[in-house]
Amino acid sequence: MVNTLFLPELREMLESQNHEEMREFCNSLHAATTAEFMEGLNAEELWQVLAHAESGTRNQIFLYLKHERQIELINGQDRREIARLIAEMSADDRVDILKDADPQVVTELLQLVPSEDRKEILRLQSYPEGTAGAVMTTEIAKLHETLTIASALQEIQRQSATYETIYYLYVVDDSDRLLGLVSARQLISSLGKPDRKITDLMESELITVDVDDDQGEVAQKVAKYDLLAIPVVDHQHRLLGIITYDDVIDVVREEAVRDAHRISAVDPLDESYMRTDLITMCRKRGLWLGLLFLFALLTTYKLHSYEAHLNVWSWLVFFIPLVISTGGNSGSQSATLIITALVSEEIALKDWPRIVRRELVMGLMLGGTLGLFGLILGWFVLPADITSRGAILVLPITLVLVVSCGTFLGSVLPLVFQRLGWDPALMSNPFVSGLIDIVGIVVYFNVARLLLSNGG
Amino acid sequence: MVNTLFLPELREMLESQNHEEMREFCNSLHAATTAEFMEGLNAEELWQVLAHAESGTRNQIFLYLKHERQIELINGQDRREIARLIAEMSADDRVDILKDADPQVVTELLQLVPSEDRKEILRLQSYPEGTAGAVMTTEIAKLHETLTIASALQEIQRQSATYETIYYLYVVDDSDRLLGLVSARQLISSLGKPDRKITDLMESELITVDVDDDQGEVAQKVAKYDLLAIPVVDHQHRLLGIITYDDVIDVVREEAVRDAHRISAVDPLDESYMRTDLITMCRKRGLWLGLLFLFALLTTYKLHSYEAHLNVWSWLVFFIPLVISTGGNSGSQSATLIITALVSEEIALKDWPRIVRRELVMGLMLGGTLGLFGLILGWFVLPADITSRGAILVLPITLVLVVSCGTFLGSVLPLVFQRLGWDPALMSNPFVSGLIDIVGIVVYFNVARLLLSNGG
Repeated sequence: MVNTLFLPELREMLESQNHEEMREFCNSLHAATTAEFMEGLNAEELWQVLAHAESGTRNQIFLYLKHERQIELINGQDRREIARLIAEMSADDRVDILKDADPQVVTELLQLVPSEDRKEILRLQSYPEGTAGAVMTTEIAKLHETLTIASALQEIQRQSATYETIYYLYVVDDSDRLLGLVSARQLISSLGKPDRKITDLMESELITVDVDDDQGEVAQKVAKYDLLAIPVVDHQHRLLGIITYDDVIDVVREEAVRDAHRISAVDPLDESYMRTDLITMCRKRGLWLGLLFLFALLTTYKLHSYEAHLNVWSWLVFFIPLVISTGGNSGSQSATLIITALVSEEIALKDWPRIVRRELVMGLMLGGTLGLFGLILGWFVLPADITSRGAILVLPITLVLVVSCGTFLGSVLPLVFQRLGWDPALMSNPFVSGLIDIVGIVVYFNVARLLLSNGG
Repeated sequence: MVNTLFLPELREMLESQNHEEMREFCNSLHAATTAEFMEGLNAEELWQVLAHAESGTRNQIFLYLKHERQIELINGQDRREIARLIAEMSADDRVDILKDADPQVVTELLQLVPSEDRKEILRLQSYPEGTAGAVMTTEIAKLHETLTIASALQEIQRQSATYETIYYLYVVDDSDRLLGLVSARQLISSLGKPDRKITDLMESELITVDVDDDQGEVAQKVAKYDLLAIPVVDHQHRLLGIITYDDVIDVVREEAVRDAHRISAVDPLDESYMRTDLITMCRKRGLWLGLLFLFALLTTYKLHSYEAHLNVWSWLVFFIPLVISTGGNSGSQSATLIITALVSEEIALKDWPRIVRRELVMGLMLGGTLGLFGLILGWFVLPADITSRGAILVLPITLVLVVSCGTFLGSVLPLVFQRLGWDPALMSNPFVSGLIDIVGIVVYFNVARLLLSNGG
């Protein structure tokens, strides 16, 4: 939502080139709020206003802009100024932004950035998207193992502004191998003993992640251990970077969206919805849609095989969509409940007998209720020509069986996928529904045959 | 997953009453790991081992146990010991645990807990589930506005152990009204000026939340502003508590699960899957399933109205499930993409013309591909008796139209819901599918009528 509250004032300031007011606008509010108020401006106007922010603040406001807007500014505004902005950003932020900018512009910008930053950018860019390396930042408070409390404190006072967090301080040896962690909390509690070595304070049993670990696993670890930051190490246990809680919150949100997409049979997008081009989107959706189509084709063959029944009891056709969609819905409910419980580790594979029992009971309860519903419908509501004595029981009995099949398959399939080491979210709702379409048709026609061959 | 790696050793320690080893087991590993290794023990065994942990560690290990296990211990083990454990916990943790324990036990425990803690527990329990008040903790580093840097530092050194975080220090006036925030980072940088007042350092433009704000909104604020903690205030702006990043991570995960449930038409559960009793579950699922059933009933009426067509071209029935499920799947994909993008604020209502245009193009692309598929199928694969010259075109044309209707409705409906101020996730996949079932049938039979009346 674009906040247009301040737009007229901003435009007026720009028109009258009121530098004093622009300066105040940029520096007096929270950077996130300033960014929000500026969203309505076009890139040139925005860049002009932004020039009035103090350098640290400018960087912050820029980071709170929408990603699309950031890219637009990077690609279009004065290279030299942009390079200065990039040099000020933290390592993880700038890699995140540069990866989507015009490659030609990035090449030009990299030449204008101090060589140390340039190397850093190139190095971080080399980690594949979705790994710990791609999310981490390299601005870490690293302390050499020989430091005392007093000298450590001096060190972080001096460097404070350049670190992403000073609340976790990492102790390393000569070859940058991670030895342990001293929290700012411990440091403050020990201010009275300035000559003690930091290695006396440090916690050496650390939870770490590997640089090529999946970002989802990293987030789960941080959430499980309630960490403020988690160190990222290479195979020699050298400290490469850290991932802080704010990046973890972003990852958790991102992963939740990916899971939701998988549950609805969309291959998760690498970019946001709007930034994904149509061809990529078509591929990511078409693949699954095509598979599901082939799957649904089986219903055609199945129905074709029941042609004789349809010729005798032609009214059966009226309830086909009702039967299969009800089964599919109950199956989707079960699949989603089981998948989300598996992902958040509320249930485990070993619970399967209890889960399947629960879902079967649930299927009978839900199916029974709907069946009763169906019975009443058949008696009072439906056109008389489709309700002979036998017909009245076909729908209720089918519903009980199909809903139970739905809850059973919807719960078992994600568990089977988990057991096979596959992502249970792949056993998505459309697949469960598709399967139940076929099962539903088989159940329906067999119930009909059994009941109607005698009495119908 | 229960980690059974250490179970034999643990059982042996218990049998031989090897106190030394149990002490080491409890105190040398990370509390989360100890808790994991103990999951396989029964409640009595676990409690015996836990007795060997140092008091702070025991508390931590307890908090890492599964919630069910915590409740079991609270309800069943020695009241006096449990009361001691509870007194040690932070305010938000104990309220979280006590709310699920046996009320009779809780009453007994509260009498054994120091009176100050008791009042705190009763107060926090009074905030409704899902609000900021219910998530916050009250162990805050509050500093009076008159303090100097040196005295503030002394204060937090003295109290460090009792605060949830000492990295954000909140400055309050005489009546506990929130004036501002000093970070430990600022305090450390200003160690050289011990006599300055903390009000000189403090940031007074604070992002706060109201005690009865929804926890989801709180999480979004924290994520947006990258905060370590957010203060919770009442209507007089008095500081009641804070919500820290680790609780926010939990809230984000919880909310993601709730969204996933809504998307699959399950009323979100208040408890975990396993802890929700069957009656509650049946109610939460049955309501939506029933609504969807009524909705699906419309397909019956619709099909009944096309009886004449079915009598003439009886083969039409074979493709009904294929047509409606393909439409439903494409609709579910769109709905999920739009709902997740709306929730994560990647798109906004005002983008609707672009979104709808995109989805329509996507529908034509996907429908076109599947239609081509359908054409090839009709020509080469399907039984000859269902492929007259006219019939061969019915399926492809229907597919293009139905898939486009799917992407259109799947994108428009969540936007309409958002516009009306309702939760877009309510326009869940099963509803979109249900609607497309009806639309699909109408489209299918009309395409058939048009093509077949002349040439079929």
